[in-house]
Amino acid sequence: MNIFVVGIGLIGGSFVKDVKAKMPETTIYGIDANASHLDEALALNLIDAKSSYTDLHLADFVMVSIPVNAMLIELPKILDSVNENCVVCDAGSTKEIICSALENHPKRRNFLACHPIAGTEFSGPSAAINGLFDGKTNIICEVEQTAFKLQEKALAIFQLLGMRIRYMNPKAHDKHIAYVSHLSHISSFMLGKTVIEKEKNERDIFDMAGSGFESTVRLAKSSPAMWTPIFEQNKENVVETLDEYIQNLTDFKELLLKDDFEGIYNEMNNTNKIKSILKGIPLNKK
Amino acid sequence: MNIFVVGIGLIGGSFVKDVKAKMPETTIYGIDANASHLDEALALNLIDAKSSYTDLHLADFVMVSIPVNAMLIELPKILDSVNENCVVCDAGSTKEIICSALENHPKRRNFLACHPIAGTEFSGPSAAINGLFDGKTNIICEVEQTAFKLQEKALAIFQLLGMRIRYMNPKAHDKHIAYVSHLSHISSFMLGKTVIEKEKNERDIFDMAGSGFESTVRLAKSSPAMWTPIFEQNKENVVETLDEYIQNLTDFKELLLKDDFEGIYNEMNNTNKIKSILKGIPLNKK
Repeated sequence: MNIFVVGIGLIGGSFVKDVKAKMPETTIYGIDANASHLDEALALNLIDAKSSYTDLHLADFVMVSIPVNAMLIELPKILDSVNENCVVCDAGSTKEIICSALENHPKRRNFLACHPIAGTEFSGPSAAINGLFDGKTNIICEVEQTAFKLQEKALAIFQLLGMRIRYMNPKAHDKHIAYVSHLSHISSFMLGKTVIEKEKNERDIFDMAGSGFESTVRLAKSSPAMWTPIFEQNKENVVETLDEYIQNLTDFKELLLKDDFEGIYNEMNNTNKIKSILKGIPLNKK
Repeated sequence: MNIFVVGIGLIGGSFVKDVKAKMPETTIYGIDANASHLDEALALNLIDAKSSYTDLHLADFVMVSIPVNAMLIELPKILDSVNENCVVCDAGSTKEIICSALENHPKRRNFLACHPIAGTEFSGPSAAINGLFDGKTNIICEVEQTAFKLQEKALAIFQLLGMRIRYMNPKAHDKHIAYVSHLSHISSFMLGKTVIEKEKNERDIFDMAGSGFESTVRLAKSSPAMWTPIFEQNKENVVETLDEYIQNLTDFKELLLKDDFEGIYNEMNNTNKIKSILKGIPLNKK
């Protein structure tokens, strides 16, 4: 089987790492706009060969893991180039605009809209890790728009990698993911900004910050090139989550200013039920 | 050596775990307002015996790890009961009010105001872990108010546990810690609240949330009984950090609404330098 990866960074690289381990008979071809990433992916043995769109007719499966603004430009071209038995999957964190962009593509049935909920705060081929997708959820949108045999081909690979499959429409995906992923990134970036601005002497932060701070600002290490277009494409939902988050923070501040510490206690106590929710979230294996 | 621990939860329990491992000749006495915690601590072998304030005259070292509102009531009583060669350390997350409360205590020189920057989101004796303090910072305030020999006695134990010592005045401590610890907890609690409120069907959160969400809301599992008095005692600084955080979130939202995605990119790119800062934060060993 010939598997092509377009965008060989954290997601694409981790994907082929597991594919190579589980399906040793496949040949992995890498395509990337960044030539040095491609060289790095080859040196790291993530891919068997460097490739380009002119070879895409040889592909049985294509994983497209590039920033979501580039998806809108590249996915139509990739679909133009593949053969009729090839399935093209994306890994974008937005689904509505991507699905709309491909709605009338003559090869729409070769496309499977995916969002594997997996990642770390790092990026690039060297960030690729084994087992990133094991136990994680892969959200598939508009599955009925994909040819049945090609759905099957893609699902067989996802299942081999240990992924749980959930079906959702693109609108619901974008709305929910704004809450459980996009908002977390903004809260983390702005927390990092607030502390950096105040603590010009970084030595003070280093000395006083503990593992709690590290946990809440971890996502502020994420790639701006990847996240800017996500916020752009999901702007409406993201603004809604931000409005609600800002309101909750303002309410908390008002309770403090009113010395309503019973109210403060209750706010935290009610949110403690996040414990039972978090128990179900699969973490990256070390 | 007789070591007494007042408040045998995550901090007190982890402290004596390491003390017992590094100083096997010591006897550990536990005091706790919660009788079942005391039984649990004995069953878990965290303490050698249950005790009470009437035995405190036997103590060489007392670690007080109770909520900061209880500190104001209990620390004077504990100091009243100890002998002149005993050093009493607290582990409270606020320092200004605690130091003020003891300012004129006749045994002020037996007290060492401490804040070990260590913890997890869990609480109670069963949350105690080995090595919690190894490589962590212990901030000591108003060191000059403590008898020199008693400073030495306490530092010897902290160093044995692998802690780095930093000296700071209580006002500076409370101001900085609001940024790198207290604000993180509020951002996490309110993020958890925002998502829970929106996603009434918890199954949806579970399916779509990944390790990034888990990381940013981890602190929302923390104990309200511990955190409410911290926010009360450090209210002024906490409100200031909240104002700045809310302003940064509002500015980010405005950039989104204005479609200023170059601005969005720059905000995240500037905050990426948190990477190099975080490298210096020691995490809990697994």
